Order: sequence, then structure tokens, then C-alpha cells
Amino acid sequence: MRLMQKLFFIALLCAVIAFGASPGNAAISVKAVGGFHIGGKEVVIKDMPVQVVQYTKNGPIEKVDPNGEFMAGQMYVQYVQLEKALSKYPLLLWHGGGLTGVTYEDTPDGRPGWQQFFLNAGHDVYNCDAVERGRASWAKYPEIYTTSPVFRPKSQTWLNFRFGTEYNEDPAKRVAHPGQQFPVEHLDQFTRQFVPRWTSTDGLIMAAYNELIDKKFTGGCVVLAHSQGGGFAINAALANPGKVKGLILVEPNGAPDPDKVDLSPIKDIPVLIVWGDYQNNPKITAWNKAAYGDLYPKFAKGLEAKNGKVTWIDLPELGIKGNTHMLMMDKNSDQVAQVIQDWMAKQGLMR
Amino acid sequence: MRLMQKLFFIALLCAVIAFGASPGNAAISVKAVGGFHIGGKEVVIKDMPVQVVQYTKNGPIEKVDPNGEFMAGQMYVQYVQLEKALSKYPLLLWHGGGLTGVTYEDTPDGRPGWQQFFLNAGHDVYNCDAVERGRASWAKYPEIYTTSPVFRPKSQTWLNFRFGTEYNEDPAKRVAHPGQQFPVEHLDQFTRQFVPRWTSTDGLIMAAYNELIDKKFTGGCVVLAHSQGGGFAINAALANPGKVKGLILVEPNGAPDPDKVDLSPIKDIPVLIVWGDYQNNPKITAWNKAAYGDLYPKFAKGLEAKNGKVTWIDLPELGIKGNTHMLMMDKNSDQVAQVIQDWMAKQGLMR
Repeated sequence: MRLMQKLFFIALLCAVIAFGASPGNAAISVKAVGGFHIGGKEVVIKDMPVQVVQYTKNGPIEKVDPNGEFMAGQMYVQYVQLEKALSKYPLLLWHGGGLTGVTYEDTPDGRPGWQQFFLNAGHDVYNCDAVERGRASWAKYPEIYTTSPVFRPKSQTWLNFRFGTEYNEDPAKRVAHPGQQFPVEHLDQFTRQFVPRWTSTDGLIMAAYNELIDKKFTGGCVVLAHSQGGGFAINAALANPGKVKGLILVEPNGAPDPDKVDLSPIKDIPVLIVWGDYQNNPKITAWNKAAYGDLYPKFAKGLEAKNGKVTWIDLPELGIKGNTHMLMMDKNSDQVAQVIQDWMAKQGLMR
Repeated sequence: MRLMQKLFFIALLCAVIAFGASPGNAAISVKAVGGFHIGGKEVVIKDMPVQVVQYTKNGPIEKVDPNGEFMAGQMYVQYVQLEKALSKYPLLLWHGGGLTGVTYEDTPDGRPGWQQFFLNAGHDVYNCDAVERGRASWAKYPEIYTTSPVFRPKSQTWLNFRFGTEYNEDPAKRVAHPGQQFPVEHLDQFTRQFVPRWTSTDGLIMAAYNELIDKKFTGGCVVLAHSQGGGFAINAALANPGKVKGLILVEPNGAPDPDKVDLSPIKDIPVLIVWGDYQNNPKITAWNKAAYGDLYPKFAKGLEAKNGKVTWIDLPELGIKGNTHMLMMDKNSDQVAQVIQDWMAKQGLMR
């Protein structure tokens, strides 16, 4: 297995050198652009006092009854469907914690995002906002969610997302990892993308992702998931056998434990696990492959023990260095996307 | 003026009958798909106690310092740029209160939304989420926003959005207006799109919209705004003279008072104001043209007094009946979009 992986790496590296990092910037022929919500259920709130609200300056003062029926637990999907997809299955993009589908739309320094890359490469793309993130909307707390939201300060990204070793409010005093690829001069622009998150909503998020795949992708799909999205992606594939045709886990967390969960339902689908650079900084307590103990190595071994098809890529081993937790925003984001695209082609996921 | 308007209406009606309601469903040639944030500023929160957070089940328990630097007041823009636009300027879509750009993406019964319609008609489309809505993200309260969010119960739409006269939790007991066009059988799907809103953020929303137009549309743009977005659109045009080349106000509210605000800066740009049906139900206290007294009639007259170019369309007068506050989701949404498209062509906004 190890030898096969190394040969694959070398082949991949040759492909990257031979074909360059971009599938082209020509116009694409698009059949449909849109968005929809799915999942969730009605929740009724009762016995709250009537509010007095003036929605608009100079507008009427209205009595608003905050009681009534609300939808809670739905998620949001934005889609771009090509006239002629070159891939066999639509590509679902699932973001990480405290973020939304914007993760894949643009980079903080204004280059095209992975959504554009994979459209150019011939995939129908479904870019999702998990429950309580972005356009999915969120529900009242403590009435519906049981906890308060957590807001991520700008500083937390520096160490945890592996941009550098020392954060300071003064940008001139921040110390970045030598050779790191995140456009740190645009950290404020990345911070604009942050959304609050709850720690009590994993069940709702999982249920909506499952409903999405079960109802909308009966013909199959490939899921590309980042960070927090990784665990949801694996569990969605386990819960919807036959409907997830490939799993691409980018700096993921939250893998199921193969000692407790039977991984057989996903043994026949190709699984790619991709890691960036700077994994061994002792200051980092989260968002690297060791943060969760041996969670992912154990998951990969457990799946291989079931004759699963796992490709484990440490980008630095491929000679692709300097990548942070936010691979899709790093300056070489297209190069990393090309590694993923080449893997999909090799796995037979393209037409 | 009145006679001219009536002749224009008749011409428009003939055009609608002659050419049908759709600019065609052929594939479109797309140059770029993406999204970005703009506006806002850094806000520092201090002296809050450290939180203990477990982000993921089985994940590490982390100490999270909730103090630090946050971005607040930014907005979000999703864009689709055509290879060859047929319009002279990009079209900005601004949603109403308690909603996001999803308003324009799909209808609750799953038909293509106005975003797709105007792409098909040849416009580059920039579909926006205002500050604190959807992908724009929102900030802590009461630390940053001074008030609590308002959540709209499903029931509130029934009367206020002019779907009908009697709401009941039991769908079978709801009374819709005879001939109304909203797909009321999909009310739950519409409710999934609702997001909380604050009543204390108008200044932040306005500032971000102004920055968007000032920085990104120096070559001009056309703004199509719904409901709460209408007032922001007029004020953005007033604040950015020469950059807004046309205003399309769909069931708008929040117009400036011409006795207090000089409307001269927008006297040379065409302004379209569109109203749906069922305007005279005494139970309705908001979201119809009379809800704000004579706000819009006064605005229109005030602009005409400055030799402004106002087109005032009551759709029932054109023979287009049954439209609710949510025109872009009504069953005849393409027909209403075509009225707007024909107006843009007549005003010289197409190439």
C-alpha cells in the first residue's frame, strides 16, 4: 500500500508539472444558477411577551407577537449547473466551523476560489451553508438552540489555522511561518467571512446534510469537505450508502472511531485525505492532524482494514509546501485544487 | 405625464403578450462566479471571561478567549459575470427585511428565480446579503449591536405580505386572497429562508451599501431593491451621484422625504416603482404602499417636481393581477420580471 501510494504521488507530481495548475479560464456554459433550503422542521414558541418594534426609521411602530411557528434546522445550498458536466457526479462543497460556503467562492486576496476552479474543471457545484451558518439562518436561543453562539476573534486563526507562531494586534509585529502561503496581509478580509457557531447543533447539521444527500442526490454525488465538514461528510456517506461516490477530506476533523463504527458501507468509495504544512508546532492545539490524537490515522487504517480505498496526501511530501489550514485560500490554492482534480480523474470520477 | 404613462403601459402590455414571459432558457456563457465581503470595521471586545468550549464531540476541550478583534458591519455579495453582458451596467439585487439574497435565487415552489431570469436577459448579477443577514454574518449583542434580534414567525407573512385574510396553524383553514399568485402550499419552504434581523443596524447596512457602490461600481450599476432594500437603494443613489444609473424599487419602503432631502442628485436616472395587488385590505398594517402614509407617492411627486424620471407601475392596472409583496416568488414571477426588463430596455439601460 505504501509503495502504491508513493508511485501515485510521483505520477501526481508529474501531472501537476506537465499540465500546470489551472484547468483554464475560458468562459463556462451554465445551465442554471440558484439556491435552495432543505431540512429542518417546524418549532412552535409560546407564551413570550409581545414586542413593540419600529422596523424602519419613520416607519410605523408595530406590535410584534414573537410567538408562533418557526422553521429550525434547515441548511442552504447554492448551485451552479453546467450545460455539460465532465464529471460523473455533482460536487458538494462543505465548509468548516465558523465559516460558510464563502470559503470556496473567492480568496481573501481576490483570486478565484475553488468553486470557480471545479466549475472550470467540469463539475456541477453545490456550495453549502450548514445549519445556523450564513444563508441557512439560525434559530432563537435558549428557546431552540440550548447554548449561546461562539464568536471567533481574529487572533485565534493565527496559531490554530497555522499562519504563524506569534500573533499581535499590530500586523507589523505578527510572525508568520517562513514560506507560508496564506495571504496574511488580507487577514481582515478573511475575518469578514467569519460567522458565529454553536456547539450544540451537530445533530441538526448532520440531519440536514443527510436529508440533502438522501433527497437530492439519489444519482450520486462527491463530497469535498473542509475541517469541521469532514466528520459530517464521512457520517453522511455512512448513512447514505451508494449515494456518496467519493469523499475528499481537506484538513478534516471529527472522524468516526473504527472500533465503534462499522466503516464497511464506504469501503468501495475512494477517500482522499489532504493535509497542509506546519503540522508539528507544539503551540497548536487544534486544526492539525494531531490535534485529535490519532483520530484520522486510525480512521484511515480502520478503513483500509475493511479493504477501503484511502489516499493520504501530506502536501509537503509532494513538494507542495507552506500550506495552512485554509488551503483553498492559500496563494497556491489552484495547485492544491489540481492535486484533488487529478485524484478524482484517477479514481474514475470524471466522464 | 399621466397620458404618457398610460401609453407606456399599453406598449408594455403588448410587448408582454407578443414576446411571452421568458427571455429563454438556453445555457448562458459565464466568465466568473464568486462572492466577496465589503465594508465594516474592526471592533475590539475586552474584559469578557474566558469560555471553555468543546467544538466537536470527542474533540479536545479548549479554553477560548472571547476577547479580541472582530470585523463588524461588513456585507456579502455573490456575483455571476457573463462572458458578454447585454446590459450597459451590472444589476445589483438587494433583498428586503428578515431575508437574504436567496430571495432572488429560487422560488419556494422550485422554479428559477429572478437572478436566473436577469442572467438569461444578459445582465451581470450581484446578489447581496445586507449587514447582519445571511452570509454577511452578524456581530455580538449587546456588545456591538445595541438591540436583540427580531425573528419573524410564519404567521406574520400571511397578512403583511398580502397572501390572504386569515392565517391558521392548520394550512387547510388559512384563507388566501382569491386569485393570489404566491405558492402558499410552499409557505414552509419560504419560511426556511427567513433570517433574524435587528432594528438598530440601518446605519451599518447603509454604510456598507454605500461602500459597495463607491468602491466596486465606479463604472455604474443598476440597483433592483425589494421592500426594506428600497430605502437603502434610493439613499445609496443619492450618496453616490453618477454611479447608480437606474433604480428599480419593488414594493419598497423607507423613502426619503422630499421636503427634507434634496432629490436633485437622482433626477437624471430612471426610477421604476412597482406594486402588486391587494393594497387596500384594512387588516394590513405594513408592506403595502399605504402602510407608510403617503411616503412613496410623496417621494415620486417630489422627484417629478425636480424633473426626475419616475415610472409608477400598479401591476393590476397593467392587467397583471394577484401579486403579493413577494413578487419574485409569485407564480407569475417571470411575467413581472419581464415588465422590469422591458422598462430597462426602454430606458436605454441595455446595449
